[in-house]
Amino acid sequence: MTKAFPLANPSSQKGIGDDAAVIDNKDFQTVVSTDLLVEGIHFDLMYSPLKHLGYKSIVVNLSDIYAMNAIPKQVTVSIAISNRFSVEALEELYAGIQLACERYQVDLVGGDTTSSPKGLYISVTAIGQAKKEQLVYRSGAKKGDVLCVTGSLGAAYLGLQILEREKQIYLSNPGVQPDLGDKNYLIERQLKPEARKDLIQVFRQSNIVPTSMIDVSDGLASEVFHLCKQSNLGAFIEESGVPIHPDAEMQAINFGLDPITCALSGGEDYELLFTIDPNDVEKIKYLPDIYMMGEMTAAEDGVKLHTKGGNIHPITAQGWQHFKN
Amino acid sequence: MTKAFPLANPSSQKGIGDDAAVIDNKDFQTVVSTDLLVEGIHFDLMYSPLKHLGYKSIVVNLSDIYAMNAIPKQVTVSIAISNRFSVEALEELYAGIQLACERYQVDLVGGDTTSSPKGLYISVTAIGQAKKEQLVYRSGAKKGDVLCVTGSLGAAYLGLQILEREKQIYLSNPGVQPDLGDKNYLIERQLKPEARKDLIQVFRQSNIVPTSMIDVSDGLASEVFHLCKQSNLGAFIEESGVPIHPDAEMQAINFGLDPITCALSGGEDYELLFTIDPNDVEKIKYLPDIYMMGEMTAAEDGVKLHTKGGNIHPITAQGWQHFKN
Repeated sequence: MTKAFPLANPSSQKGIGDDAAVIDNKDFQTVVSTDLLVEGIHFDLMYSPLKHLGYKSIVVNLSDIYAMNAIPKQVTVSIAISNRFSVEALEELYAGIQLACERYQVDLVGGDTTSSPKGLYISVTAIGQAKKEQLVYRSGAKKGDVLCVTGSLGAAYLGLQILEREKQIYLSNPGVQPDLGDKNYLIERQLKPEARKDLIQVFRQSNIVPTSMIDVSDGLASEVFHLCKQSNLGAFIEESGVPIHPDAEMQAINFGLDPITCALSGGEDYELLFTIDPNDVEKIKYLPDIYMMGEMTAAEDGVKLHTKGGNIHPITAQGWQHFKN
Repeated sequence: MTKAFPLANPSSQKGIGDDAAVIDNKDFQTVVSTDLLVEGIHFDLMYSPLKHLGYKSIVVNLSDIYAMNAIPKQVTVSIAISNRFSVEALEELYAGIQLACERYQVDLVGGDTTSSPKGLYISVTAIGQAKKEQLVYRSGAKKGDVLCVTGSLGAAYLGLQILEREKQIYLSNPGVQPDLGDKNYLIERQLKPEARKDLIQVFRQSNIVPTSMIDVSDGLASEVFHLCKQSNLGAFIEESGVPIHPDAEMQAINFGLDPITCALSGGEDYELLFTIDPNDVEKIKYLPDIYMMGEMTAAEDGVKLHTKGGNIHPITAQGWQHFKN
């Protein structure tokens, strides 16, 4: 639908097709990312506290700015909200927005609150800055580059499954209190994710500029495919290199799921997936929470996973479909 | 709700409280404005063709950028749309967006389309550029400055009244075709407004920088009050200086309304209201479509209207309430 929109202004450095758009302001590049979150589609108020939701709506946009190796500085927030929400509810939402702004040091500079006939809609635009030579696109990976990822994958997806399960139990028997047991880590990964600001700071300090980068919002497999497609490459991933938190691993097994499947297809992790030049391996080798899990290969080799069992599986952008077959 | 949000980043030049936010990028200032348009609140699909709606959703945001005396360069558009809309309907909407982008030479650089459980939501963020010395805020007017406005006021409001009337007739008798007669001008002002890009170009060519400026989206009275409040001044307006199109004048009388009331309170005109230094009067005197309609006075004098009948009325931000009493 947006293919018919060519870029006319010289300052429009990069349009649709990366984590964020890039605008050339000579001294600085301005990086812009926007998201529209819809009740019943992107979030469920039965288990999303409004303060968490406000926080998350900012964080997911900041994650896109960090994925360009840029620093977010401003956000605008527009909210459409139906009259079933009280003023106190709206205040809760803004309290979460404010907390995220403070923690990530971004300024709320615009937007408004309007009424909605039904449901809650949150539109956030994040604006960041970077020097031209710092910007990292999805398209910059080269064959032989080392494929890295941060943090832990699959946990947000498993947190969502727990919340959905408790919701169904509650709906069929409203007297039962949710049993979230010791699942705090997984649930927090779903309801109150963080963006990897720390990694961008580490890159600056260690003098590293990744060759390509993307944030993991739709599952690792999908994002690897984006990097491969836009860099015109393939990828080889070691299952043993994919970081999965012990809580996520255990919960996956409890649900009868393969942990690697959850990591590949889960989504909403907001970790960063990036490639670095092999010469930079020494610089990142001992940095915390960065996992070297594979290598960029030729496009014709496709995207392949080397399992712990020693098999080589081709994987798809959906990740787990090959496992199901 | 947003008062608790102080600005922390030095690049956040101007936050909430003007037509747009301003971000300092050294060479250029980046100007950002955002709007969330909601079906049933901001537009009615019974009489808004989707192509017009797409066009208007861009134009109203560009108008905010022009009101800063900046040039819009990029937009992002996020759409949430329910499954009652066909792909063709969505294409119509994007066709209008594209037409506006072409006509105003802005690039669509981001956004997405997502599903909505009910209704259509359009979120647009417009991004513009200006040199620091070109930017015009609401707060810059000085006592004695000449108060000017472009174009024609009240017509969009009267167009809306005609469309609402025909909608009611249609709802009570679906066999009757709408009778829009010779009301094309008024209806177009409502359904497909234009932003005053031309004026900003005239300012550049004539070497004029207004002392303050705002776009007329909520009615002339409301906007005059914004300039007065933020510049800490009053204003004196000559009724005879307020530009009202003959079609609007006639239609107001047909509806039993006072034409000046429609101009003061109507809204959605997307004209520009601005003040200039008295020394610049010679520069704008013979420019087309600029109307000098008053003067900025001391704050304690309030906002007053000198009617054609020779009376002096204090006016309120709502414009016509004093007339009603």
